[in-house]
Amino acid sequence: MIIDVHGHYTTAPPALQAFRNAQLAGGDAVPAPISDDRLRESVEGNQLRILGERGGDVMLLSPRASGMEHHVPDPAVADAWARVSNDLVHRVSELYPQHFAPVAQLPQTPDGNLDGVIAELRRVVEELGFVGCNLNPDPSGTWSGLPLTDESWFPVYEVLQELDVPAMVHVSTACNPNFHTLGAHYLNADTSVFVQLLQSELFRRFPGLRFVIPHGGGAVPYHWGRYRGLAIRYGWQDPAELLGNIFFDTAVYHQAGIDLLTRVVPVANVLFASEMLGAVRGADPETGIAWDDTLRYVEAAGLSPAELAAVCEANARRVYPRLATRLERVAMGA
Amino acid sequence: MIIDVHGHYTTAPPALQAFRNAQLAGGDAVPAPISDDRLRESVEGNQLRILGERGGDVMLLSPRASGMEHHVPDPAVADAWARVSNDLVHRVSELYPQHFAPVAQLPQTPDGNLDGVIAELRRVVEELGFVGCNLNPDPSGTWSGLPLTDESWFPVYEVLQELDVPAMVHVSTACNPNFHTLGAHYLNADTSVFVQLLQSELFRRFPGLRFVIPHGGGAVPYHWGRYRGLAIRYGWQDPAELLGNIFFDTAVYHQAGIDLLTRVVPVANVLFASEMLGAVRGADPETGIAWDDTLRYVEAAGLSPAELAAVCEANARRVYPRLATRLERVAMGA
Repeated sequence: MIIDVHGHYTTAPPALQAFRNAQLAGGDAVPAPISDDRLRESVEGNQLRILGERGGDVMLLSPRASGMEHHVPDPAVADAWARVSNDLVHRVSELYPQHFAPVAQLPQTPDGNLDGVIAELRRVVEELGFVGCNLNPDPSGTWSGLPLTDESWFPVYEVLQELDVPAMVHVSTACNPNFHTLGAHYLNADTSVFVQLLQSELFRRFPGLRFVIPHGGGAVPYHWGRYRGLAIRYGWQDPAELLGNIFFDTAVYHQAGIDLLTRVVPVANVLFASEMLGAVRGADPETGIAWDDTLRYVEAAGLSPAELAAVCEANARRVYPRLATRLERVAMGA
Repeated sequence: MIIDVHGHYTTAPPALQAFRNAQLAGGDAVPAPISDDRLRESVEGNQLRILGERGGDVMLLSPRASGMEHHVPDPAVADAWARVSNDLVHRVSELYPQHFAPVAQLPQTPDGNLDGVIAELRRVVEELGFVGCNLNPDPSGTWSGLPLTDESWFPVYEVLQELDVPAMVHVSTACNPNFHTLGAHYLNADTSVFVQLLQSELFRRFPGLRFVIPHGGGAVPYHWGRYRGLAIRYGWQDPAELLGNIFFDTAVYHQAGIDLLTRVVPVANVLFASEMLGAVRGADPETGIAWDDTLRYVEAAGLSPAELAAVCEANARRVYPRLATRLERVAMGA
C-alpha cells in the first residue's frame, strides 16, 4: 500500500471560496450547499485520478494550505473558516474512505485563539475521525508571533499528545513581499521550525508529540552537517535526538533531492508525500515525469524493498496511529 | 591554487568590538589603535593557519557577518562602523597579500543609506583594492524592507556593475526570535533572494551584475525541481537562466550536501568556500574532519580535475575579476 501523507484539497468547488470571500467582506457568510456529486467531480479528475494513475492508494487530504490565511485576526472568522473547510475535507474522505483520510486546518489567529484551535481539534478528531492536522508556526504571515517552542503553544501540544495525533508544520500565505509563499515561505518555515526545535527541550516535555516537517524539511537535510556542527558549538541536542518526534515528507521534486533526503535522514523518519495538487503542476519537459510524481524518485532512490515499504506505508501508519486504525476499519468493510 | 571566496574576520582584536560598543552607547566613538602585530596574531593562529593546513592558498576576507548589524538605523553610525571594519580587513589583507583579499561590509540601514553605501563601495574598491562586497538583502533584520529586485536597490547595482564587483548576498543578525541567525536566517535569506531573482528581470536590466549566494544557496539546490516547476507554472524564467549572474558557494558541511550541490548546479556556478571561521567550529566527532573543511567534501565529490580546478580557482577569478588582477599583481611581486 502506498500512503501519501501530504495532499491538499485545492480543487474544492467554487462555493467554498465564495463563502470565504463573503466572510472577508464582513457579511453574514453562510456556506452554499455543495452536492456529493460536485465533491466527487472535484477529486475524480484530480487528486483521486492522479493518485491512482501513479500507483498510490491513500492520501491524507487537508484544506488548501495557502488558503488557511491565519493572518486574518478575528477568531470567530477563523473558527467558521476552519469548520467549513474541514467539513468539506471530511465529506470527501467519507465518499472515498479507501483513498482519503482527513487532516485538519486549525482556526489559528495571530494572537492565538487557543480555545478555538483546541475545540476544532477535538471536534474533527473525536467526532469526525481526522487523523492529523496542519499547525501553522507563523499564523501572522509576518513571523510576528513566538517560536513553536514557546510555552504559549503548550495547551495545543497537550491535546495533540492526548489525542495521539501528529501535526504537519505548515505555514499559509506569506504576508511579506520578500517571501514567495510557495517558493520561499514554505521552505523557510520548515527550516526555521527545525532550528527552533533543535534548541529546545520541547520533546522532553511532550514525548508523545510528533511533527511532520513538509517539503522534505526545507533546507534541513541539505545542511545536516551544519546542524550537527551548530549543535555541538552551542550545546544543543544533536539533530538525531529529534528523530523520535520529527519526520520529513518527500515533497521534493527531483531525483537528486530525494536521493539526498534518503541518504541523510534515517528511513524511519521519511514519509512518502507528493503535496499534490500543490506548488507545482504539470511535468518536467525534459523527462516527461510530473514534478510531483515523487513516488518515481523515491522508487529510484536505491532503497531496499523493506525500506521502500517503510517510507511508503509503515512509517505513516506508525506516525499517524489514527490512520492505521481507520485503514483497518475500512479494510474490514466497517 | 585554492581560493576560498567566503571567509570572515571573526577573530578581530577586541578593540574593534569596543569601538562598536562605544558607538552603540551613543558616545563619541574613536577606534583604539591596533598594531600590525595584533592583526597578525589574530589570523596566524586562526584563518591563516587553518587555510594553510587544509591546502588553501587565498581567502576572500570580509568583516564578521552577524556583526554588520544593519538594523541599527543611524546612517552615520553605519558609515563609521563599515569604514572601521573594512579598514581592518584591508590591513590584514595588505599584511598577507598572497593569502587574503578584502571583501567589504556596506553601511546599509533599514531605511536605505544609498549615498553611504555607494560612497563606501567606491572607497574600498577604487582606493583600497577590495574585490567584492557583502550585500544584506534584509538590513532591518526583520524583513521589513523591499526585495532585492525592487528598483530602490538599483543605484547600488549601477555601481557594482560599473566597478565590475560581485556581491555576496549575506544577511546579518536576525532580529526575530523565530529565526536563529546562523541556523535559519542565513539559509532563509539565501532561499528567499533566489526566488526574488527568479521572478524578476533584474539581470536583463543589469547584465553585468553578479551575486554569490552563500551557504550552498540555502535550500535552493535541494529544491531545484520545485523551482523549475514553479517557474513553468508562473511563467517565470527557468532557474538555469539565472546562472549567467548567480553563483553558489560550497559552505555546506557534509559530503551528501556537497554531492547534491555539484550534481545539481553546473560546475561553472560553484565557488569553493568554507565560511571559515563561521557558523561551525571544531570537527565532526564521527569522522574527525572539521565541519568547515569543505575542501575535503569538494575533492570527494567526483569532479574531474578540470572541474575541481574550476570550482577551486578559475570560477573565483572569473566572478571576481578584481581578485584575478590582484593575484596577478601579487604573483609579480608588485
